[in-house]
Amino acid sequence: MTPNDAADAIPDVARDEAGEKLAAVRTLGAGSPVLAFDVGGTDIKSALFDADGRALGLRRTPTPTAAGDRTPALLDRLQVLAAQLRDEHPDVTPRAAGLVVPGIVDAAAGVGVFASNMGWRDAPLRALAAERLGLPVAFDHDVRAASWAEHELGGARAYDDAVILVIGTGIAGALLVGGRPYTAGGYAGEIGHSPIADGPVCPCGARGCLEAVASAGAIARRYREATGTTPDGAKDVIARAAAGDRVAADIWDSALDALTLSLAQLTAVVAPEAVVIGGGLSRAGGALFDELRTRLAARLSFHRLPALVPAELSGNAGLIGAALRARELA
Amino acid sequence: MTPNDAADAIPDVARDEAGEKLAAVRTLGAGSPVLAFDVGGTDIKSALFDADGRALGLRRTPTPTAAGDRTPALLDRLQVLAAQLRDEHPDVTPRAAGLVVPGIVDAAAGVGVFASNMGWRDAPLRALAAERLGLPVAFDHDVRAASWAEHELGGARAYDDAVILVIGTGIAGALLVGGRPYTAGGYAGEIGHSPIADGPVCPCGARGCLEAVASAGAIARRYREATGTTPDGAKDVIARAAAGDRVAADIWDSALDALTLSLAQLTAVVAPEAVVIGGGLSRAGGALFDELRTRLAARLSFHRLPALVPAELSGNAGLIGAALRARELA
Repeated sequence: MTPNDAADAIPDVARDEAGEKLAAVRTLGAGSPVLAFDVGGTDIKSALFDADGRALGLRRTPTPTAAGDRTPALLDRLQVLAAQLRDEHPDVTPRAAGLVVPGIVDAAAGVGVFASNMGWRDAPLRALAAERLGLPVAFDHDVRAASWAEHELGGARAYDDAVILVIGTGIAGALLVGGRPYTAGGYAGEIGHSPIADGPVCPCGARGCLEAVASAGAIARRYREATGTTPDGAKDVIARAAAGDRVAADIWDSALDALTLSLAQLTAVVAPEAVVIGGGLSRAGGALFDELRTRLAARLSFHRLPALVPAELSGNAGLIGAALRARELA
Repeated sequence: MTPNDAADAIPDVARDEAGEKLAAVRTLGAGSPVLAFDVGGTDIKSALFDADGRALGLRRTPTPTAAGDRTPALLDRLQVLAAQLRDEHPDVTPRAAGLVVPGIVDAAAGVGVFASNMGWRDAPLRALAAERLGLPVAFDHDVRAASWAEHELGGARAYDDAVILVIGTGIAGALLVGGRPYTAGGYAGEIGHSPIADGPVCPCGARGCLEAVASAGAIARRYREATGTTPDGAKDVIARAAAGDRVAADIWDSALDALTLSLAQLTAVVAPEAVVIGGGLSRAGGALFDELRTRLAARLSFHRLPALVPAELSGNAGLIGAALRARELA
């Protein structure tokens, strides 16, 4: 089986949304053509960015499953996707590739230190991907790359000291300090796995993680556990709360309180100029942002309150961040 | 009244401890002679550092009281102290002075933005002090200067990403990022005024600040409120807890839990290599450090646990930091 045969077999889970998603990707501006891969536990976003910085062939395909370490299967898939993108656009020759992945990432060393949903430990992903793709590879953490994209092209453009929060199935975060990502060897920014209470136990093994209480995933799960009814995501729980559902209102209220406590901690200790919030929950708009602003102001005193602003690149921030990192090599 | 007459009238509250304190001050190493002032709400530490970096004439004197803004009275006092130190050591000619103060400090602008116990708002203290002292003045926040001293000469020498916590009457903090103080316009590092619970209301106006639960001052106050007995400081409460006093044990346990929660937040979000702990409570030794290490490890999972190490410069870190800052100008 050649790479292209394999490519035909990869379902494009985002095909229906492709038009919308393509439109939503900002151009990078002029520069070298690059490949970009944003690898998640469920799917991979990939695209070829041309010399104008436009995303060509943007697609979302399933991350290959494998028992244990998914590194070999991932490398096969990246090779197939690269060949597919290059075949579709023979006039665009990428000079480098950007690869961003979840978990604990040592970007300087090019190593995926740990990712529970990918099964790797200390995987030299940058070198492995460079070998497979035959290109220089820029390697980074998905959310730090996304935060960099928000800083360069999105909601964090005006801020050099900022925190990016992505509230979806989980809660991921990244810090920008003095206009640069702050990494602490890959361990910084784990706001979703910072404790805000004594419970519940989080799947990560710690107690009372913010993510276990206040992520969109947790809000839906908590409603299901409390009522036996499966809501249509956190958005549905918020709508039920607004319509007078007491259980939904209590869950939403406690999620807002937990987010406020985390934001208050961030404000006191890191004092960012802005917190840029993306992910599914950010689409709640004023129900989220206005409530957080009010509660945060009520909770603190002399502190400098950060601007709370929506992410602008949202679902594509990681991919754009990967492309920006690749451009640094090209 | 000449400055020297006034100097004679300043009680030296640290006279009895002068020998011990002098011995405890590390030398800065060779460099220009400088004056250094560490201004607190209660007292001012001052000294003249000679060309070998030794502290001469180290003294602790009361901070002048005044209704409202204490800036004019402070400037008078600094002038007197400087004259006194110079008169005592006519062979040592300071080339610059370092001034560090509490509160919200914009070191870059040379401005004391706000300090509840000093009464100033947006006071251009660097320029005012330079005029009074007739010397270039380096100006900084007391705890950030102390953290810099710990990084250069004390417990944080081995670490470029570190948090310094000073747990005494209150709880102050400072962040070192990449070997440099991280300031965020003077607002970063307010770990003592980061919330860890829903109560009590802190004198700062916020709710559930760490300082209101877990500072040495709070531990003693909480014991007094619970029992009607005034303990001999937090140290006494810890000793009573060890001796089987249930009330003391509960207060100490809850203070450790609060400190652990704050450290867990710091570990997840900032991920420092080390947390350097100074102030009165740090003298509890293993009763503090061993407990915090155990509780922090139990509370977290994949996170990178920071080394918890005692501050080495302790009560003189701010003064040494002021001298180091002054040396940068001299």
